[in-house]
Amino acid sequence: MNKIFTHSQIDLESLSINELESLAQKIRQEIIKVVSKNGGHLSSNLGAVELTIGMHTVFDAKTTPFIFDVSHQSYTHKLLSGKEDIFHTLRQFNGLSGYTKPSEGDYFIAGHSSTSLSLAVGACKAIALKGEKRIPVALIGDGALSAGMAYEALNELGDSKFPCVVILNDNEMSISKPIGAISKYLSQAMATQFYQNFKKRIAKMLDILPDSATYMAKRFEESFKLITPGLLFEELGLEYIGPIDGHNLTEIISALKQAKAMQKPCVIHAQTLKGKGYALAEGQHSKWHGVGAFDIDSGEALKKGGAKSATEIFSQKLLQLAEKYKNIVGVTAAMPSGTGLDKLIERYPDRFWDVAIAEQHAVTSMAAMAREGFKPFIAIYSTFLQRAYDQVIHDCAIMNLNVVFAMDRAGIVGEDGETHQGVFDVSFLAPLPNLSLVAPRDERMMENIMEYAYFHQGPLAFRYPRGSFILDQEFSPSKIELAKAQWLIKNESNIAFIGYGQGVGKAWQVFKKMQELEQDVNLIDLIFAKPLDEMLLKELAKKTKVWFVFSENAKIGGVASLLQTFIQKYDFNVKIISFEYEDRFIEHGKTNEVEKNLKLDVESIVQEIQIYLS
Amino acid sequence: MNKIFTHSQIDLESLSINELESLAQKIRQEIIKVVSKNGGHLSSNLGAVELTIGMHTVFDAKTTPFIFDVSHQSYTHKLLSGKEDIFHTLRQFNGLSGYTKPSEGDYFIAGHSSTSLSLAVGACKAIALKGEKRIPVALIGDGALSAGMAYEALNELGDSKFPCVVILNDNEMSISKPIGAISKYLSQAMATQFYQNFKKRIAKMLDILPDSATYMAKRFEESFKLITPGLLFEELGLEYIGPIDGHNLTEIISALKQAKAMQKPCVIHAQTLKGKGYALAEGQHSKWHGVGAFDIDSGEALKKGGAKSATEIFSQKLLQLAEKYKNIVGVTAAMPSGTGLDKLIERYPDRFWDVAIAEQHAVTSMAAMAREGFKPFIAIYSTFLQRAYDQVIHDCAIMNLNVVFAMDRAGIVGEDGETHQGVFDVSFLAPLPNLSLVAPRDERMMENIMEYAYFHQGPLAFRYPRGSFILDQEFSPSKIELAKAQWLIKNESNIAFIGYGQGVGKAWQVFKKMQELEQDVNLIDLIFAKPLDEMLLKELAKKTKVWFVFSENAKIGGVASLLQTFIQKYDFNVKIISFEYEDRFIEHGKTNEVEKNLKLDVESIVQEIQIYLS
Repeated sequence: MNKIFTHSQIDLESLSINELESLAQKIRQEIIKVVSKNGGHLSSNLGAVELTIGMHTVFDAKTTPFIFDVSHQSYTHKLLSGKEDIFHTLRQFNGLSGYTKPSEGDYFIAGHSSTSLSLAVGACKAIALKGEKRIPVALIGDGALSAGMAYEALNELGDSKFPCVVILNDNEMSISKPIGAISKYLSQAMATQFYQNFKKRIAKMLDILPDSATYMAKRFEESFKLITPGLLFEELGLEYIGPIDGHNLTEIISALKQAKAMQKPCVIHAQTLKGKGYALAEGQHSKWHGVGAFDIDSGEALKKGGAKSATEIFSQKLLQLAEKYKNIVGVTAAMPSGTGLDKLIERYPDRFWDVAIAEQHAVTSMAAMAREGFKPFIAIYSTFLQRAYDQVIHDCAIMNLNVVFAMDRAGIVGEDGETHQGVFDVSFLAPLPNLSLVAPRDERMMENIMEYAYFHQGPLAFRYPRGSFILDQEFSPSKIELAKAQWLIKNESNIAFIGYGQGVGKAWQVFKKMQELEQDVNLIDLIFAKPLDEMLLKELAKKTKVWFVFSENAKIGGVASLLQTFIQKYDFNVKIISFEYEDRFIEHGKTNEVEKNLKLDVESIVQEIQIYLS
Repeated sequence: MNKIFTHSQIDLESLSINELESLAQKIRQEIIKVVSKNGGHLSSNLGAVELTIGMHTVFDAKTTPFIFDVSHQSYTHKLLSGKEDIFHTLRQFNGLSGYTKPSEGDYFIAGHSSTSLSLAVGACKAIALKGEKRIPVALIGDGALSAGMAYEALNELGDSKFPCVVILNDNEMSISKPIGAISKYLSQAMATQFYQNFKKRIAKMLDILPDSATYMAKRFEESFKLITPGLLFEELGLEYIGPIDGHNLTEIISALKQAKAMQKPCVIHAQTLKGKGYALAEGQHSKWHGVGAFDIDSGEALKKGGAKSATEIFSQKLLQLAEKYKNIVGVTAAMPSGTGLDKLIERYPDRFWDVAIAEQHAVTSMAAMAREGFKPFIAIYSTFLQRAYDQVIHDCAIMNLNVVFAMDRAGIVGEDGETHQGVFDVSFLAPLPNLSLVAPRDERMMENIMEYAYFHQGPLAFRYPRGSFILDQEFSPSKIELAKAQWLIKNESNIAFIGYGQGVGKAWQVFKKMQELEQDVNLIDLIFAKPLDEMLLKELAKKTKVWFVFSENAKIGGVASLLQTFIQKYDFNVKIISFEYEDRFIEHGKTNEVEKNLKLDVESIVQEIQIYLS
């Protein structure tokens, strides 16, 4: 094997620090090269190069559970562990995943934050039961520590005393700015200046003190340790090493060896610079976290413009509404730029908040604001709302509060793949009493729906896609009324296309093809998946025989399934065919490639409809 | 108003400590009296009497957001705030809820743990925006602090500095034994002995030290504060008062006044005795937490025995399986006796764990064990699995791991009411790829399903009811095979009853009535809600015209809905009628009364079927 990047532990151990540093630089260049072409997580990966080399140097990658939190920093691991030949296919359809994946030889999947410590605890228990000597190594960012789940795991880890190494990759920024008490606590200011100054002052004092104070000095030494950043972890029962320089391989390897020898749960607090090694990205908060293809020299994005994204529409419209209606408030869980809430937080810092990676807290704190008469907009990706499911039920739906869930990234999200697809929200939200579900087909409807949402009584969730709306036909926008659908194209055909949200755009694309084939079709925008427009649907059921349903959700519990229940309830003789997603997790790749693979591109759908109608 | 318990803040302020203590004793007697008749939360309520009186004395209950975590300690609050006339209807159908409820005048609903601090943060933000002076008061137990959500809220509260009072009701036991590092940390041993001894030792040392050490002494004083239990909170940016005696009204009122005056977020650490004032319950861990009716003098339960509960079947069978198959492991999130896992934890403490109120961590840590080749059984109430929804998806289903979810309390749970009903699990789990859903109709099937679960490849969830199975007919048990249903009664009728889980028992009860009315019916136990037994269902669809579906889940996304999709897929002409739950939250009361109210008792169902068939 004559590879540049792939190295076993034995290889790495035999290298000098200089050679390891040179390897780090090569890895960095490779990451910049591939990400500049394919897009991906740039700054988080550049920040973790040396830490990952350290892991592979001190632990055997073949047997050690390497657990990458979110795994948006696992590119170095991929290169070191034999994927260099396919690294250029990163995030492409049928190519290497942008996250860790067991089918690619990794220990565990991760795309959502803050699962690594729980996984480490499970691995510890398994290893103990098997009587093995392996020690799980978890790499987790400071941002991920804001999620309660990480704390639940620390609580057990500190209590159980299993051997385990937690590398806290503290870049003081998470995806966005650091939020909350814990971030302040871990901040470098505290970790370095305060700690160092205090240490010096004590040393000086001890020099001038008489001998009688020896006992006290010793005690003092002990208690002054407490105000290091390690204290929080030590109180929870974990050992603490740090802070160390997370780009200094000598320090990293030494800390990892020390932690490995401890045979206890140990946190290594490593301070790193996000984007390290790519000058344009160094120290930037969110801009270089996840990027599309870009020019390496200028840092400019290669693809620009295009239609306004749904996120931008949301951001602009909410700003307008917030100016008009002073009781609108809002929250994001660590996705200010991703959801477009950043503009509102900037403009109204006392009404809009980023509460860090804390979806549960985000939802329930807004529920209390609704109880107090405010109108919260909770801006959240569809896939991340799964993390606050009980809070939607227990704190919003039971209370029937006026809370709006603005669900971004609904449907297929592209290159992030299976952990990020927003394809279950209709299914898991529709069964909840009091909650209404709505979706816009285009920009104007989105604005109308947001206006409507402000006045809607009870909890309301609306979903919109990643990127832009695909509908390229302007239908006169409907005034939004609860449970009112819109019959966009009405004719004598006994076929109906029913679209929901982005599904209307897809239905329209298919509709145009059908017109070319001289097949007339009714076109309906359902607008509300719940409650359904029973009046319109009854009329439709009387004059049509087949409904083709277009929505970007799983088939099970999806829009067609809700319509099937309606048809059954009223004994209509209508055949319903769903163009929603089959019962499987959907892989990564460009959305159009993924859709084609699922036979949900326009051509495949037209073909299937023709077969059905023939 | 000449009431014994109801008191305004003005009333209470005018009472002496002796009078308040006497009020506390009267409240305690009333709680014991009513709970001994109606059942309910005894020890948690007895432990919080003085704290609640303190809250009502120092704060105006009419305007202050009183936020009771889980609200299983809110009986004193109910009595003080005008519910004494209806307190005897506690937990009864159409009577007073056992939890807080806005429709009864309370600030917020709560039945699930650890939401109070997020609610307090939301209330703080609302109050700040309104420019009001109110200060939210949250009462939270030490057990509830193990949930990550509480920590997410503390993280923002400590950072934001909003005025807020958090009363930490530390009874060192949560529902069960205290678990995890945080519980150890808060423990009374540490809070009292260690703290007190250390303080004395320091004082002594300071006496003998020369003057030159003054500066150091002051510093020392500061740093030694750090090792009090307050440290954890202080590090997160909150003020800390305590530990105080949570049954001493003088201390409580003084601490509350001090906290109120601070205008900052402040934790009052109060040490209480669960069950205080009822000798039999004092200091007991879980036995007296939630109880049925009992004899006050002897403490004996009034209703005994009855059929074996599904929880007992689970516990016994899992013990048997765990003996046989050494790779079975398991977890509960603070419900060891509720789920029956206590027996396994006792027997195999290195294979079965109570990880505290930490559903997310429970699921994901077991996912890692499955990755390591173990077979985890996650014993959890259906309603609490909602709190780990993303972990089921992201860490178990995507990975297609061999994890078993044993969902207790599926269906209507009775007196705990709307926050605890286990009526959504079929809906929110069925859309998840790789996950299979199964349910037993009776004891023998439950045992068979658990045997099967051990060998099943991929994640599997099985649901079973609170209490006992109602099916009183022994059908020969089916050997469990994936996606195999069982045709229990086969005849020439064109009607079929399809049951799922406890629904088979209900179907059987209705079936017997139909027999009396000389109406023949086929009876099918679906066994698997996913995947469906397509072969059997196709045969059934060919020879029947109407399917009545019995399952204890919401209609939306429920079992009938899954069958409707099947019927539509294969173009069968079958009418499906669901006896699942309508789209509303279901109130508390005895299960049979609640079912009758929903028209889901046997008589109502028979009537509806007759109407349909006529």
